[in-house]
Amino acid sequence: MTYYEKVIASVISSDHASVVSMNLFVALLCACIIIGHLLEENRWLNESITALLIGLCTGVFILLNTGGRSSHIFVFSEDLFFIYLLPPIIFNAGFQVKKKQFFRNFMTIILFGAVGAIHLFQKLDLGSLKIGDYLAIGAIFSATDSVCTLQVLNQDETPLLYSLVFGEGVVNDATSVVLLKAIQNFDLSHIDFATTSELLANFLYLLIASTVLGILVGLLSAYIIKNLYFGKLIRHCTDREVALMILMAYLSYMLAELFALSAILTMFFCGIVMSHYTWHNVTESSRVTTKHAFATLSFIAEIFIFLYVGMDALDIEKWRFVSQSPGKSVGISSLLIGLILVGRAAFVFPLSFLSNMFKKSSYEKINMKQQITIWWSGLMRGAVSIALAYNQFTRLGHTKLRENAIMITSTISVVLFSTVVFGMMTKPLVRLLLPSSKHMISIPSPPSTPKTLTEPLLGNGHHDSGPNNGDNLNGPSPNPLRMLLNLCNRGVHHYWRKFDDSVMRPVFGGRGFVPYVPGSPLEPGLPRWH
Amino acid sequence: MTYYEKVIASVISSDHASVVSMNLFVALLCACIIIGHLLEENRWLNESITALLIGLCTGVFILLNTGGRSSHIFVFSEDLFFIYLLPPIIFNAGFQVKKKQFFRNFMTIILFGAVGAIHLFQKLDLGSLKIGDYLAIGAIFSATDSVCTLQVLNQDETPLLYSLVFGEGVVNDATSVVLLKAIQNFDLSHIDFATTSELLANFLYLLIASTVLGILVGLLSAYIIKNLYFGKLIRHCTDREVALMILMAYLSYMLAELFALSAILTMFFCGIVMSHYTWHNVTESSRVTTKHAFATLSFIAEIFIFLYVGMDALDIEKWRFVSQSPGKSVGISSLLIGLILVGRAAFVFPLSFLSNMFKKSSYEKINMKQQITIWWSGLMRGAVSIALAYNQFTRLGHTKLRENAIMITSTISVVLFSTVVFGMMTKPLVRLLLPSSKHMISIPSPPSTPKTLTEPLLGNGHHDSGPNNGDNLNGPSPNPLRMLLNLCNRGVHHYWRKFDDSVMRPVFGGRGFVPYVPGSPLEPGLPRWH
Repeated sequence: MTYYEKVIASVISSDHASVVSMNLFVALLCACIIIGHLLEENRWLNESITALLIGLCTGVFILLNTGGRSSHIFVFSEDLFFIYLLPPIIFNAGFQVKKKQFFRNFMTIILFGAVGAIHLFQKLDLGSLKIGDYLAIGAIFSATDSVCTLQVLNQDETPLLYSLVFGEGVVNDATSVVLLKAIQNFDLSHIDFATTSELLANFLYLLIASTVLGILVGLLSAYIIKNLYFGKLIRHCTDREVALMILMAYLSYMLAELFALSAILTMFFCGIVMSHYTWHNVTESSRVTTKHAFATLSFIAEIFIFLYVGMDALDIEKWRFVSQSPGKSVGISSLLIGLILVGRAAFVFPLSFLSNMFKKSSYEKINMKQQITIWWSGLMRGAVSIALAYNQFTRLGHTKLRENAIMITSTISVVLFSTVVFGMMTKPLVRLLLPSSKHMISIPSPPSTPKTLTEPLLGNGHHDSGPNNGDNLNGPSPNPLRMLLNLCNRGVHHYWRKFDDSVMRPVFGGRGFVPYVPGSPLEPGLPRWH
Repeated sequence: MTYYEKVIASVISSDHASVVSMNLFVALLCACIIIGHLLEENRWLNESITALLIGLCTGVFILLNTGGRSSHIFVFSEDLFFIYLLPPIIFNAGFQVKKKQFFRNFMTIILFGAVGAIHLFQKLDLGSLKIGDYLAIGAIFSATDSVCTLQVLNQDETPLLYSLVFGEGVVNDATSVVLLKAIQNFDLSHIDFATTSELLANFLYLLIASTVLGILVGLLSAYIIKNLYFGKLIRHCTDREVALMILMAYLSYMLAELFALSAILTMFFCGIVMSHYTWHNVTESSRVTTKHAFATLSFIAEIFIFLYVGMDALDIEKWRFVSQSPGKSVGISSLLIGLILVGRAAFVFPLSFLSNMFKKSSYEKINMKQQITIWWSGLMRGAVSIALAYNQFTRLGHTKLRENAIMITSTISVVLFSTVVFGMMTKPLVRLLLPSSKHMISIPSPPSTPKTLTEPLLGNGHHDSGPNNGDNLNGPSPNPLRMLLNLCNRGVHHYWRKFDDSVMRPVFGGRGFVPYVPGSPLEPGLPRWH
């Protein structure tokens, strides 16, 4: 251990070259944020594409300067991604998701997410890889990247669509990570009924155990903060509360790692529980701080990944194998993109039809234009796919195999193509499909105003609470008929509310179950920046 | 590089044991925060001591469980400290310091900090170490840890004392880090006039260049955010602003590393500039977020260090050397503690006398009780000393030398003794010395209420602004005479203000130089939690 520590130390600090590259990389991150902001009015671009393009340019620059030896500043460690970059993104996803919408559409999301994740399984037959690798490819390419679409959709104007696209993206990611884990746990040299059912059981076990662990840690954090700070009434120390929340979130991740569960899923559900209970037990400043701190970390991690993917795309070593058989590589990439397009369509439209059959109100139904948007939003492949591909095809040290190198370059090609080409077409497409609502960026930015802070003051009956709600107030046409229909349709949600109010909230806190101080310096929802 | 990355990856993730230890460590951090909070009413304890004691207990537990082989969960890497733990602490120090008090008392602080830092130099003569090692010991033990005292003092009630103790602590830390760097850069086998003056020149160069770099990066961040967001008036995105601030702060650190400057000092001044300009150019939510996020990171880092020091104190290998000559080790530790006590007294009291001679108003003079508090607050030695000792006595791989092991154990002994014994006596002592003001913890927590947010709304003439000000409003006895005297005494500060208002603020923003939106949802200073 001491030896390793020394190696780490030497890598991190003593190495002058690594200090230079860290500087360059941090400066590039800043540049991405600034340029991305300046280009915000642009029709075609967004921050992901900007970061990708800047990464590509930097890669070319380094390639020329090093005489073609290297194209990136430092080597992408898959663990860097899974330990430092993905957790904030996933936790923030759980923390900011509109829980009510998410769970109300839960079945639809599960349909889109999980079924859509499995659909690519038996379609691949294109090399000398093992059966496990095919399954892995299916899992890898079921991790969609809906960031592009989400940047164009407005959560307050099209809440149903937003929550579908968002929820599907998260479930997709989580499912594919869990799937890959389940696949890698098995020797798949011969597939029979026993193996398949064992695989399925393992998948379900991972899914359920991870979810339960995340919920437990989240509830523990809520219980501790509620009883520690409100029970004793000594004083509220924002720094301690924020520190506890961050540490407990990280603890949920590490615990899942310890029990060999899916840390991603655990973190996602820990985020949901924390935003439902813990977030309401802390001070106002803690709420603002946690909300934006988590969002910022997630934002930095995303930019980081896209910047790296852009640089990594030019890695010369991987392309050496490809150059020996360029046709094959192009073929695989095209085939993958085709499969994504067709496979996605083959599931979105029938599933939407199925889902619409069970919806009574026409408002809740998914119309054709929305279906196309959902289909489109699942075409992009991003950082998660890259990371999973590295995980599958570089582990056990067999990086130098030709098939593995080709699979990695194909993954990079698909990600680059789908992010840049499909991504650039997203803004115009969404504007074309949904022209009625304003999807322009010039809207007074909802994500930056803490409108959610004002909600507890209203003291109304809305139970959907958390760091990023507000749909009940801002959703379109809250007419009496719809509210009546909602009331009838509630079902499970109704019982959950009853249970939540009578059992959970008195123990774990949450909105309305913490002492309310009247003289709060936050006035309800005045617009502040224009 | 690829090889190192793989090693890092294997250390971080694949190793089951390291996952277990990470879990344990994060859980212990949570426990420290919770127990520290519960013990807050206690007379003798504070969070540092709690963490230290929990660390000791864990160390004993692990020692018993592993049969005496090891006492800590993982090995302390000095670089872990300098790259991940110290930067947030120092940046937060710069970010939260009351700039006006800090710079008004700048000369006093420099006197206490820098002169006090050099005073131990020629007093040590107790082993077979080289002359460079003696100088290093002087530098190591001039890094005081004033956290204990600061936890008891109240910034709003005794602003002068607080800023003296705080500022001295920071300058001490920075000076000793810079000193050690300057010393390590030189071959000190023979000391003559040339070497001495070269050393001094190097020290001054590091000091000035680091400060200038920090100020430049801070100004750059202010300029970018002001022109990017207020110039274009597109929209304010909190996450982007916060991300930019964090990245720029980190950039200042990495740039200093790149130019072989003192990254600590650079970060400290970058923090000061950011709180003076950048912090005023961002949205309200960004202000709350940055203020508390930086404070939280700093808080976690401090608890982390104390927890580790507690565990590390029982490391069996280091004590093996000591057991061969226990008398010598005890002798060295006692001598060091004695030197700290005497050396500190030999500088605080004469310097206070000197400083008082130049102060006209009796209010600004440092009275005897305050002098004793300052003397006392400089007795604790903490995490910085430990880290510097590791840096000096384990580098170049000569860890196994007897002298080095003894110096490290002596450092740990001094830190343990001073933190626990002196630290526990701090609360009673301060209450005894300064009984007039309430130093109790039951005061409505100033650090958790963002009262500073309300100040820009008052629109008064106070120019001391930043994330943690408010002394002008809350300081004791703001009588007309004192204000008149202040007006006369202002001197440099007056010209700085003029320059700031006419040149700096129009370019870099800052309070009063950003578009003010009247409908801000923050009402002035209502008390919210009791």
